[in-house]
Amino acid sequence: MRGVFGMLAEEIKNYTIKQLKSLAEEIRSEIIEKVKDCGGHLSSNLGAVELTIALHKVFSFPQDKLIFDVGHQCYAHKLLTGRDLSTLRKQGGTSGFPDPEESGYDPFVSGHSGPSVALGIGLCNARDLTGGTEKVISVIGDASLGNGLALEAMFSSEEKPKNFIVVLNDNGMAINQNTSALYATISKMTAKKRYRRFNSFVSKTFKDTSAFGRNLRKIKYSIKGWLNKNAFFERCGFKYVGPVNGHDLAELVSVLEGIRSIDEPVLLHVITQKGHGYTAAEEDPARFHGVNKNFAQQENSFSVALGRLLSDRAEKDGSLVAVTAAMTDGVGLSGFAERFPTRLFDAGICESYAVAMAAGMAKGGLRPVVCIYSTFLQRAVDQIVHDVCLQGLPVIFCIDRAGFVGADGKTHQGLMDVAFLRSVPGLDFYAPKDCAELADVFDFAYAKGRPAAIRYPNGYAPNLGGKMRISDYYLWETLSDGKDVCVLASGARAVRRALEAKKLVSPFGPKIVNCRSISPLDGKVLDAVAQMKLITFEEGYASGGFGSAVAEYYARKGMPVRLKIMGSESAFVSHASAEEQAERYRLTAKDLALKIQAMYRMEG
Amino acid sequence: MRGVFGMLAEEIKNYTIKQLKSLAEEIRSEIIEKVKDCGGHLSSNLGAVELTIALHKVFSFPQDKLIFDVGHQCYAHKLLTGRDLSTLRKQGGTSGFPDPEESGYDPFVSGHSGPSVALGIGLCNARDLTGGTEKVISVIGDASLGNGLALEAMFSSEEKPKNFIVVLNDNGMAINQNTSALYATISKMTAKKRYRRFNSFVSKTFKDTSAFGRNLRKIKYSIKGWLNKNAFFERCGFKYVGPVNGHDLAELVSVLEGIRSIDEPVLLHVITQKGHGYTAAEEDPARFHGVNKNFAQQENSFSVALGRLLSDRAEKDGSLVAVTAAMTDGVGLSGFAERFPTRLFDAGICESYAVAMAAGMAKGGLRPVVCIYSTFLQRAVDQIVHDVCLQGLPVIFCIDRAGFVGADGKTHQGLMDVAFLRSVPGLDFYAPKDCAELADVFDFAYAKGRPAAIRYPNGYAPNLGGKMRISDYYLWETLSDGKDVCVLASGARAVRRALEAKKLVSPFGPKIVNCRSISPLDGKVLDAVAQMKLITFEEGYASGGFGSAVAEYYARKGMPVRLKIMGSESAFVSHASAEEQAERYRLTAKDLALKIQAMYRMEG
Repeated sequence: MRGVFGMLAEEIKNYTIKQLKSLAEEIRSEIIEKVKDCGGHLSSNLGAVELTIALHKVFSFPQDKLIFDVGHQCYAHKLLTGRDLSTLRKQGGTSGFPDPEESGYDPFVSGHSGPSVALGIGLCNARDLTGGTEKVISVIGDASLGNGLALEAMFSSEEKPKNFIVVLNDNGMAINQNTSALYATISKMTAKKRYRRFNSFVSKTFKDTSAFGRNLRKIKYSIKGWLNKNAFFERCGFKYVGPVNGHDLAELVSVLEGIRSIDEPVLLHVITQKGHGYTAAEEDPARFHGVNKNFAQQENSFSVALGRLLSDRAEKDGSLVAVTAAMTDGVGLSGFAERFPTRLFDAGICESYAVAMAAGMAKGGLRPVVCIYSTFLQRAVDQIVHDVCLQGLPVIFCIDRAGFVGADGKTHQGLMDVAFLRSVPGLDFYAPKDCAELADVFDFAYAKGRPAAIRYPNGYAPNLGGKMRISDYYLWETLSDGKDVCVLASGARAVRRALEAKKLVSPFGPKIVNCRSISPLDGKVLDAVAQMKLITFEEGYASGGFGSAVAEYYARKGMPVRLKIMGSESAFVSHASAEEQAERYRLTAKDLALKIQAMYRMEG
Repeated sequence: MRGVFGMLAEEIKNYTIKQLKSLAEEIRSEIIEKVKDCGGHLSSNLGAVELTIALHKVFSFPQDKLIFDVGHQCYAHKLLTGRDLSTLRKQGGTSGFPDPEESGYDPFVSGHSGPSVALGIGLCNARDLTGGTEKVISVIGDASLGNGLALEAMFSSEEKPKNFIVVLNDNGMAINQNTSALYATISKMTAKKRYRRFNSFVSKTFKDTSAFGRNLRKIKYSIKGWLNKNAFFERCGFKYVGPVNGHDLAELVSVLEGIRSIDEPVLLHVITQKGHGYTAAEEDPARFHGVNKNFAQQENSFSVALGRLLSDRAEKDGSLVAVTAAMTDGVGLSGFAERFPTRLFDAGICESYAVAMAAGMAKGGLRPVVCIYSTFLQRAVDQIVHDVCLQGLPVIFCIDRAGFVGADGKTHQGLMDVAFLRSVPGLDFYAPKDCAELADVFDFAYAKGRPAAIRYPNGYAPNLGGKMRISDYYLWETLSDGKDVCVLASGARAVRRALEAKKLVSPFGPKIVNCRSISPLDGKVLDAVAQMKLITFEEGYASGGFGSAVAEYYARKGMPVRLKIMGSESAFVSHASAEEQAERYRLTAKDLALKIQAMYRMEG
């Protein structure tokens, strides 16, 4: 599919600034229109339109390499490189994130914060060892720069590779308010009144020097003294250039041309406005960070329920504190934040820090509840092991977006948390079937005072009935009795589909068990159903998942069973709706119904 | 067990500086003697003797909280708090790392780099919400400070909690040479000629002000201007104090008393010398970082073999590069580093960066081999998933110290890597039985050009024979034929013990299979042995491990089997020899022999 702009990336090299400006308007309109149709990331993409156009005007991609950190700013880039946003985030359509499978203009898939600097250094190291000459450009937001991975890369060496450009896309805010020391460092530069004057000087000088061609090298060194020096970035091995107005195409093109003509590592500081050009988004960029069709905000039942639950429990227990990592809204904590501002700790995009800091708070007698999406919790595996579970500290992890996540696709799937966490010693692990049960499970885990994790999916989650509150005796809940075949379903969507499947296979009547505790398993139920034909059913990788734990349980007890494991194959699952993803991996109610029927037909 | 010094932590409050100096000598001798007897971390512990004494002299632990990052500097602290180093790192004896189960003077178990600042902030947050007044002190080395988790914590906020002291124990080197930009920043301060004068002034002033008691607050602000300012730490919300001579007890005590008397967050910069007071260690601190009995260096067959292998293959393939994270010696790469200095990338204690940077190099056409201990690879789980496997890049992970690690104990065990990695899509995963097979497996994985991981234990590893080179057809290798019972052994120690067990159970004759590929499994072998009585045998958590993968294989195929899983229970395994740890978790050859005999007796 070719986008409305075709392969403009080539053509715009000959555009005038005026033409570029008019193109920026068209691209902005296209982004707004298509995000309105398909949902997507709006604010950050609108903020990066001029920057992207200027980069394509000045550099020669894909020979030069352009790495978007997180990828929340890649839509203009997609439009300029022939991609069609009318299928954005739809099954078979254009991904919401960069992807080499989609275009040679994207060196990496990106969806998590912080790797762009490390990836860029890696590309440069390879280029320098193999004698290449291309430029490598990493575009990173101010919030992502505070992530540990980005900081490790920034501080990795005093000497950065030549022909490496880090563009700091500074929109002055992360998804949520950014109070970091790093940002304070950055914003000090912006505050300088002289910066306009400097910029204008620098821009002109670069222009002049380009004209001088070969004299550039000499002149550069005299320019250096004039550049707005910054100890932080200079110490990290970059020449600091900026700040530059990220919506002024003439300025951007001029400065980038200057940078292109030198070979030293440069950090270009660009000031942009999230949501630029769309008033509603400018005024409330967080609201328009990620939106659904018609700019509706995603309604996630579990997130809403969790927010209410924590507010309620925090009212009753002064030691309950909430921790998140730049996803206060996403995990449902906005209300909590308003009600208990001193008890909500937003660590920025620093999952490792969030978890270790929570461990410290737990040691100090508080009861931290860490709310992080499944995919991002991968960033804190060692802290969960080493700083929480090894210490036996009562931190509760609320893992949102567990299972298929839908339109965000490959980089955001919550399919691995069971495999990663179920083996961690001392960690209790739950998956409630609905929002009512979330409260039960939370209270149960909280009362135990041990490390615990609770996983649940995004999207709408209906209440499924069932009145058996979780207890040490009734870890699992039989939702529907049946004979011969038993479905062991783990997680909200799996349980819902299991109940639907039972209706589909009527008059066959499998037993349906809500396996709301993954660690520990309910040995009493497993022993009781061992003679039945068993199907484990979950939305997550079958490999290492809940079904694997069940198979292991019987194997360790030396009990041979007839067991089918239904879960996702281990694959990176691309964008589509969560239901379509379940169809793709044969995890719908209908798929389960077919399996149940097959089990009934099976001998023995 | 009470140590030779008893609970000196209390008594030394009344010691004179002269007495403290003499105590330092005694402690130093005790550390050298006991490390010579038991093995342990020598250089870093010798460097922190005076600092530790001064901290105990000035502060009131355990009311005040003292957190040692990594814990490589805690021996003097252990001696002062009644612990006995004569059982250091031995089964049932004193741990080589801080541990609250051992003493109330240790708030946390620590063994990984970087969490101390986050943990300290967490403790302060809890204290401040609950109205406590104690001081919280995090002692962190200069190398650890460059870890992403530490950097996230440093930059987390412009305002740090009051009564929070970070002691930067600056010995000017990590385990390996530190070339980071962060260190350059720190060392600049040290270079200042005036620092002695400043320090002496500051020390005196603090002393005087303490005498003034209530006037302190006012005077403090006038002192502030005199303190050796440092933009980096000041911007992170700390008052910077230092550098201070970390071996001058009078200076240390004086400065710490000053710091104790104010409530602002302070970063105290202490210059120490690794190995101080023991000439051999001073001259070659890396050699004496971690040693065995009689200061012998650990001989790890696989590490040595890997180093030779990579040097050899690098000779043949110019695109092979090696990456590690401050463990060049430990993973066997010293020779490689000498021979190919431009192709060895040591990322410092930055596992996340190491992996993401390797991904960039792979994208740029190189063939990176990332060599990291199992326990520390937990720091890079998301980079393995998101930056390597999702991109399908040919990075090979050589996972050293997989399995029981012996004396380092709980924080360093390599028991989780199989559970964490076997579900990651697109990652091939191997466990060779001996060093000869390491080369086979490496070449096999390398030729495939896909993401791959290879795990192997520390210590002596004999060659076990067997001539079946790994191939797509012969993923697994039958080492010994047998009937009725089949042992599926994964990993060098498991295979060795399986062969030993076979001798023990003679005349019973189980089939012994070397399951050197964990992902993928060898379906042909599994199908062929499905009718036998099966035992999976591995050194790692049974939960989520290799045996779990086998159970899952049969369950997914709907094949009921008689299968026993032998692996470690999910527990944090404390220090002892690796063999003792295997005994503790019933994973010796004898344990396996008993299980084989039981299987033979089993009906059916």
